[in-house]
Amino acid sequence: MTEQNNAAGRVAIVGGGLAGSLLALSLARQGIGVDVYERRSDPRVDQSGGGRSINLGLSKRGIQALSEVGLLDEVMPLTVAMAGRVIHAPDGSTRFQPYGKDRGEVLHSIDRNELNRLLLDHAQRHPQVRLHFEHRLARIDKDARELEFEHGEQRVRVQPAWTVGADGAFSRARREMQRGERADYHQEYLEWGYKELSLAALPDGGSRIQLEALHVWPRVHCFFVSHPNRDGSHTLTLFLPHEGPDSFATTREPAQIRALFDKYFPDLVPLLPTLVDDWNRHPTGSLITTRTAPWSLDEWIVLVGDACHAVYPFYGQGMNSAFEDCSALMAALGRHPGDRRAAFADYERTRRPHTDTLAELSKANFVELKQKVQSFWFLARKRIDVALNRLLPRTWLPLYTMIAHTTMPYGDALQRARKQDKILVGAASAAAVAAVAALAFGAWATHLI
Amino acid sequence: MTEQNNAAGRVAIVGGGLAGSLLALSLARQGIGVDVYERRSDPRVDQSGGGRSINLGLSKRGIQALSEVGLLDEVMPLTVAMAGRVIHAPDGSTRFQPYGKDRGEVLHSIDRNELNRLLLDHAQRHPQVRLHFEHRLARIDKDARELEFEHGEQRVRVQPAWTVGADGAFSRARREMQRGERADYHQEYLEWGYKELSLAALPDGGSRIQLEALHVWPRVHCFFVSHPNRDGSHTLTLFLPHEGPDSFATTREPAQIRALFDKYFPDLVPLLPTLVDDWNRHPTGSLITTRTAPWSLDEWIVLVGDACHAVYPFYGQGMNSAFEDCSALMAALGRHPGDRRAAFADYERTRRPHTDTLAELSKANFVELKQKVQSFWFLARKRIDVALNRLLPRTWLPLYTMIAHTTMPYGDALQRARKQDKILVGAASAAAVAAVAALAFGAWATHLI
Repeated sequence: MTEQNNAAGRVAIVGGGLAGSLLALSLARQGIGVDVYERRSDPRVDQSGGGRSINLGLSKRGIQALSEVGLLDEVMPLTVAMAGRVIHAPDGSTRFQPYGKDRGEVLHSIDRNELNRLLLDHAQRHPQVRLHFEHRLARIDKDARELEFEHGEQRVRVQPAWTVGADGAFSRARREMQRGERADYHQEYLEWGYKELSLAALPDGGSRIQLEALHVWPRVHCFFVSHPNRDGSHTLTLFLPHEGPDSFATTREPAQIRALFDKYFPDLVPLLPTLVDDWNRHPTGSLITTRTAPWSLDEWIVLVGDACHAVYPFYGQGMNSAFEDCSALMAALGRHPGDRRAAFADYERTRRPHTDTLAELSKANFVELKQKVQSFWFLARKRIDVALNRLLPRTWLPLYTMIAHTTMPYGDALQRARKQDKILVGAASAAAVAAVAALAFGAWATHLI
Repeated sequence: MTEQNNAAGRVAIVGGGLAGSLLALSLARQGIGVDVYERRSDPRVDQSGGGRSINLGLSKRGIQALSEVGLLDEVMPLTVAMAGRVIHAPDGSTRFQPYGKDRGEVLHSIDRNELNRLLLDHAQRHPQVRLHFEHRLARIDKDARELEFEHGEQRVRVQPAWTVGADGAFSRARREMQRGERADYHQEYLEWGYKELSLAALPDGGSRIQLEALHVWPRVHCFFVSHPNRDGSHTLTLFLPHEGPDSFATTREPAQIRALFDKYFPDLVPLLPTLVDDWNRHPTGSLITTRTAPWSLDEWIVLVGDACHAVYPFYGQGMNSAFEDCSALMAALGRHPGDRRAAFADYERTRRPHTDTLAELSKANFVELKQKVQSFWFLARKRIDVALNRLLPRTWLPLYTMIAHTTMPYGDALQRARKQDKILVGAASAAAVAAVAALAFGAWATHLI
């Protein structure tokens, strides 16, 4: 059975996740009618969706986008501030590294599903927005400008004014849009997977580890990251190789699970009394980087978020960059009133270089999280960066600060960090030369006397 | 209607193109039963398949693989030897660059479809091979180890002992094999497309341009390459940007087509009396590079040729490398008797780095063909390479020679070429130093007198 849905003159958004629901609100606020089509059931009704999504760190870019739709005041109470990282060494000792020079430069831990529900609530309340759950995109007829969804046994066909693909890393909208076109596409999996575990709160609601921080247990072979929840619990995410020795493949039986933790995370064992059950109940996730071009077709369809650039979660910028895409798209539409084709092209041209940079930074931060946060030189470098930032708060910005605590485009941030690196290396060399000169002068002076 | 096809204990090859039919012969010669499933109709019956495939230059690697199945003596009469490149300058002047130091180092121009028909003839005659045309792979059930083909209105399901995906750059076998797996995949289109035209023979069967050569009309904005045919005609392939000024997008009307040729290829205009008709009759092709991993799943399915590494045609190694894949796979199976999983892994581990190198070389040769073959320095360097190769035939091998005229693995060839480059640069620097020293000594000696 086929149903026609009156979508004429309205925008169709494929995907009602974070980016899709935020963009629906942005468009609606400009008086544009929006239909959101989501494959899954309404997450506000069916709340079983957990266990597979890394907790998110909301940072400056995401905050900016939420402010633009007037939702920041409602979102912030759902978050727990994280002022820095607590590094847990194998011997059980800990060390705190602040994220920035002051309390303004913090990240905000938030439950992805909770944020999604809030965005959907607001979208639903807006008279310009209609939400359609359990609508799975089956096909796009590009000539007819028609989307076809599977809805239970029904086929629903709609002809929107234009379309946004916000349906994530395995975007069907992208695939349908690019079918038969000369599209570039790259996908690359990390050899490591992840699994979520939970660190329960104390009976009085207190936290077993410092609450207002991101915790990292860096080991070269694997590592844990944890995000705090408002109830005092923490969501732990283990990153571990999929295959090989001490991997997800070799960690299935209770004895194997316990052995892995005894070997790498003995300090966590007493905190995780239901470890084996949790391990088996939670699926093992995979991590993917994707890049693609083009991001749009004519004046009719455009992509945002993971649908056009999925990144590894190690810089905590997946959601933040997806939200920033929505702002960038809205801004491009504003710059080209009445010429959507030009707006889409402008959006891609100005935005894609920066999300490409983010993909590389997110890969590089994998190495940092698993390994470098333990290294003396890495820490020394971090301290110099923070100290210089305190001395010269406007001119010297550590890369992490620029990515997490500013809205400077990712590519510009990287370029500036590289310049700073050069200055540091130059200064270090000059210092070394001065030291040698001073020694030589000392020797000469001594000789004179 | 569904049909079961008795494939038990036999190998299924998806794709009856060059690699698929050659591999069928290789396996059959070892007494292994093979079913070849080809999406298209039998090209020996329906000969309309032309107009979209670049003529091929058979070189050493392909020759080696054809020798292994005992077909070289039948293939060679179908070819025209090409002793080098004839470069056509914009002013109509020409220059000949030999491919190697002697007449043994030549390429062999062959019609792709003719070679395919010959391979299929031989496969069909072999009692171990069965050919199935118009069988389009629809689905692979990896758990059941079952392939499902669409054959007209029928669905044909087979459960072969194991499977080879030899179904080209848009391989369905690859997609089905990798579905739900953590597979890396990269695809990238060239901004340039291609179109084939034909340069007819003279009425007496003679050639209008030198027969036994590859001809190149290098222009920075576009270029022609031509391969000779046995009847004295040449298949011309124009490479031109898809979009922008003077592109396929702006060259549709007769006046536009003529203007393009008047501007860039005035010397070709008198040779192409049916230019406008040919232009409109032949489709515009696209060029894609793909890379992927893994190439196999367990002990049951493995990929060869374009299905795992499509490259641009600019090094003339697409068919040659696909044939070499077949040899490499057969060799790996020979190294691991009774352990197909190990053989597949070994094949990928030893082969993939070299096809990755080939992809890069094929991209780099695009620049060479369109531009550098005109440059003084490029030609000087080529001459030095050839001269050194004449002087030191065993120790000094130009990169092109190693790729086209040896079976040295692609990666090893590139490494060796880089070493030679360093020696050349070192020698040039030493020569410069010696020259300066000689001048200085001369000046000093003059001063003494």
